[in-house]
Amino acid sequence: MLFWSIEVPYLCVPEIFLDANATTPVLPEISQIVQRLCCNQFGNPSSSHLAGMMPKQIIAEARNAAAQLFRVADGRFIFNSGATEGINTAVLSVLAPYAGKAQEDTVLLYGATEHKAVPEALKHWNQVLGVKAKLLEIPTATNGALNIEFIKAHASKALMLCTMGANNETGVVQDLAAIANAIGGKDKKVPWLVDSVQVLGKVALNLGELPIDYATFSAHKLYGPKGTGCLFIRHGAPYTPLQQGGGQEHGERGGTENVAGIAALARIFDWLIHPQNSPLHSMETLSAYREQLLNALKKLFPELVLNQPYPESLPTTINFSVPGFHSGQIIAMFDAAGIRVSAGSACSKGRPQSFVLKAMGLPSWQCEGAIRLSFGPASSAEFIQMAATRINAMADRKQASEQGRVSGLWIPEPFDVGFAAYADETEKTLYWVGDSEKVKAWLNARFPSNDWCYTNLAPGSYEFGSYQFNVDSAETFRVMHQGTKRTLTLNDKGVALSDSNHTRIETIGPDEVALGNHFLIDVREPLETCMQAAPNFSGEALISERADWCRLALELTNSEIGLPMVAICRSGGRSTTVAALIAALGGPTVLSCDGGVTDVVHLLAAKESVI
Amino acid sequence: MLFWSIEVPYLCVPEIFLDANATTPVLPEISQIVQRLCCNQFGNPSSSHLAGMMPKQIIAEARNAAAQLFRVADGRFIFNSGATEGINTAVLSVLAPYAGKAQEDTVLLYGATEHKAVPEALKHWNQVLGVKAKLLEIPTATNGALNIEFIKAHASKALMLCTMGANNETGVVQDLAAIANAIGGKDKKVPWLVDSVQVLGKVALNLGELPIDYATFSAHKLYGPKGTGCLFIRHGAPYTPLQQGGGQEHGERGGTENVAGIAALARIFDWLIHPQNSPLHSMETLSAYREQLLNALKKLFPELVLNQPYPESLPTTINFSVPGFHSGQIIAMFDAAGIRVSAGSACSKGRPQSFVLKAMGLPSWQCEGAIRLSFGPASSAEFIQMAATRINAMADRKQASEQGRVSGLWIPEPFDVGFAAYADETEKTLYWVGDSEKVKAWLNARFPSNDWCYTNLAPGSYEFGSYQFNVDSAETFRVMHQGTKRTLTLNDKGVALSDSNHTRIETIGPDEVALGNHFLIDVREPLETCMQAAPNFSGEALISERADWCRLALELTNSEIGLPMVAICRSGGRSTTVAALIAALGGPTVLSCDGGVTDVVHLLAAKESVI
Repeated sequence: MLFWSIEVPYLCVPEIFLDANATTPVLPEISQIVQRLCCNQFGNPSSSHLAGMMPKQIIAEARNAAAQLFRVADGRFIFNSGATEGINTAVLSVLAPYAGKAQEDTVLLYGATEHKAVPEALKHWNQVLGVKAKLLEIPTATNGALNIEFIKAHASKALMLCTMGANNETGVVQDLAAIANAIGGKDKKVPWLVDSVQVLGKVALNLGELPIDYATFSAHKLYGPKGTGCLFIRHGAPYTPLQQGGGQEHGERGGTENVAGIAALARIFDWLIHPQNSPLHSMETLSAYREQLLNALKKLFPELVLNQPYPESLPTTINFSVPGFHSGQIIAMFDAAGIRVSAGSACSKGRPQSFVLKAMGLPSWQCEGAIRLSFGPASSAEFIQMAATRINAMADRKQASEQGRVSGLWIPEPFDVGFAAYADETEKTLYWVGDSEKVKAWLNARFPSNDWCYTNLAPGSYEFGSYQFNVDSAETFRVMHQGTKRTLTLNDKGVALSDSNHTRIETIGPDEVALGNHFLIDVREPLETCMQAAPNFSGEALISERADWCRLALELTNSEIGLPMVAICRSGGRSTTVAALIAALGGPTVLSCDGGVTDVVHLLAAKESVI
Repeated sequence: MLFWSIEVPYLCVPEIFLDANATTPVLPEISQIVQRLCCNQFGNPSSSHLAGMMPKQIIAEARNAAAQLFRVADGRFIFNSGATEGINTAVLSVLAPYAGKAQEDTVLLYGATEHKAVPEALKHWNQVLGVKAKLLEIPTATNGALNIEFIKAHASKALMLCTMGANNETGVVQDLAAIANAIGGKDKKVPWLVDSVQVLGKVALNLGELPIDYATFSAHKLYGPKGTGCLFIRHGAPYTPLQQGGGQEHGERGGTENVAGIAALARIFDWLIHPQNSPLHSMETLSAYREQLLNALKKLFPELVLNQPYPESLPTTINFSVPGFHSGQIIAMFDAAGIRVSAGSACSKGRPQSFVLKAMGLPSWQCEGAIRLSFGPASSAEFIQMAATRINAMADRKQASEQGRVSGLWIPEPFDVGFAAYADETEKTLYWVGDSEKVKAWLNARFPSNDWCYTNLAPGSYEFGSYQFNVDSAETFRVMHQGTKRTLTLNDKGVALSDSNHTRIETIGPDEVALGNHFLIDVREPLETCMQAAPNFSGEALISERADWCRLALELTNSEIGLPMVAICRSGGRSTTVAALIAALGGPTVLSCDGGVTDVVHLLAAKESVI
């Protein structure tokens, strides 16, 4: 079954997309252009007949608009599939003349906080062409600014210099004029690439004044479609096509032109040339919007720390960390509330920490916990207000949740944090064991040390409520539930999963979950679960059990439940792990839903509305 | 002013697009998918949050659909910007390991009738990487089939073999199984690329059975958007990414994925997997459609000659030539009638003759006059009927036009043909001078030798009507109008334009042409002009003077016209040439319209409807 057969709306609440530095929606005005060029004026610009002439004209006018916008005096634009292609084209262009001629005493200079497409392209072509130059990172200050002295010191032996206009994670804007001066201004020798993806629509770029040789742009970062972009090439800069074909783009980039994408880019350029006729807001307005969102975030996380030089960075980007939270947890909380934020670059997903923040010298916990919240320059005041209101509501829910259950077992996200605790609310005492370095921040966020008394457990055996703690050392310990007799073994890495935990778990598709036939167990973190906009079901069988997953694995029995149990989480990953853990500890059979809460909730809602 | 400010419809009559091998419109069903993925489910597939999950899933399902459709057992697909990128990626993949290591005794084998992207990419990467292999064309028989013995003889020293599934100009389908056998079947050594752009939707491709290493596809050749495609790579075939970036496509193709384009491809694959649920027709139906169109063409050009092995070629492609016509003339005639056909590949525009037909050993006149008419597999019976009816109407108009003015001066398309004639209808005699080799076909098409008597003029001076012919030799001669005393000098290349003819001519935009203020002179060829669907104007100032341009240059005076004269043609090229020629010969000032008849007609129609 292909994806489009699912036609139910994906969300209960309207999605609030605050990840504009990753991508943006195509605005209706641009979508209409795309549609017209796809369906009506769809000719191949290379065709001799009339159907080819209009598309050809569109491309010519888009090229003129680009030159006008960036005040180009002596250079040209080629249209391509996006900035990554542009970066690879620029790098190939500079390195191709050295193919097979090792340049061991030279360097390829690039900013330590570049989008990783830049070092990856440099490494790739350096290797493919056998150039053997050394890749050399330009260090940055803690405010993200590149070290100009370093550039000055190494420019003379550099084959190429790559810097960015504005950083995608932090919004840090580089001082391109200072870099230009450092390499000799108009008389500079080193070919210079500026990744300009994030400046488009946010910072003016004057290619007539700055001696930039290559500048790359992507339409989808400013309301255009994905798969389209352009590359500026200064007159006289080396050029080697990345793809040769039917002679398109004056022989500099083969392949039938993406006319619809190019027309979309032309409209975007036109907005920027005539801002008074555009949906894009001024920097002042955008700064005020950012302030409004930051205030809401501070209500949700009073302890948040900014990871960026706030006033000097792009007014559409906030980058922050919260003590005691890693980024995955915060993304999940926002996701449950229908708000999309990210941990740094979309392309860096799965990395343990932000290399951008690391390069800026920020502490590990900030790099591991960084959240990027970004919005597009066409965001309306209503949209920002809606986002702020939703974040404020999250703050209320978080507070309410934290005032709920406290007494009992706490084994938060054991894969990352690796400790266990037992909270006794009557005594206001927290008994804990584990790695003291890692857990300090987490403990303080939930059990502030001015309210609670912390007791670190020395090796030995302890009983708390229905739990028994057996501590072998500060690094390894076991927690047993006295009723079920099930035991979890933990060490400083978290739950020590034995091979038996990787039992193959039966899964069930979100479309197979049936009202009245299944007992649903929500295994997300309590803070994530509490953010979910609660669906209003009349069916009694759908019961959301808000419990952390280690307690579930230790305590869950099916004695009182007459239905098959199905674990659900955000996307189907954690539910499988929890079901496997329950099975490994000898608990009842739990199926895992091969999908997310949102899928299940909406499929059920759709079914119910039919009944 | 940017292009989209022109919102008038582009055509008087509905456009009939018969150039599907160049590109196709995006069908509404696919356009809806594109729109949804652009505007609603627009997330970046690399994002960790929920907005990234659906696009990621869409890409995974598209990949599965591709594998299912092409029966892939041991290979993978990467999505890219189209076949040209795919071809360049395959070529780079094969050649990168030889970078800097000259392979002078090896060859790069490719079919003589390949789309030129293939030899261009081979040449490019061979040079950039310093591989120094020899490019070697595989000859074809007159039916377009590759010489299998040649492949067999050269495969052992080939670094790479590139062939195509079906030819874009002639629709010739290659016998891939025979090629596979020639190179050793499953045990073959040479990496094999098959450009599969034109087979998609027309010929089944079984990548599980054939030992093809790389296969390239473009969505826009089968109702998908431009700028999207995919590349098949057999497991174990060499692979080097063409663009490295954020790790997308499992690290094999960096750059944010064009999700909308990929979803469009997935829908196309789904149509082909389940043809019963698709708008695509069977080969039988398409063959019948082709027959219907061919019959209409034969009425328009009874003397047409097919340039393809008709029964064995793609049932959606007709390639023909007409004695006495070069392709530009026929394209212009069809254009005027609102039908888009092409001369070979869109990418070969401006080339004097089709290299594909030349490689097949066809006579020069066929290569120079080739017309490709192609339709997409989703064409409806109504569409084909409408096209046939329109072509039949063209035949009627052509006949009527040819029965019109005959007596007088004839200097057809002198840049290419290079001869002059004077027809005397009373005597049924044609007096002509020029290159007898080149003109035979042209003469016969208009003045069949069984009706007319031909008299070739020996050096000397002759008077016919108001014209005087001064023949110096069979290669150089002059034609003078006795009233204006203007003289055209011709040689075997056509009109001998002196430098003075390149006078800068004043142009006027199509939007500046004003009813009542200008006298429009249509300078297209009479056969082209007669095909134009006549607009119905009430304004008296718009007068279409249907005359061939050499007569105009010799005869035109403005004595009786009180308005500035504006020459118009199909696109603005010829009108400038004619205005310059008139000026050079001492005729009156004629402005040139910087646009085409269609623009002017519709802009005027729009203005009139406002008044």
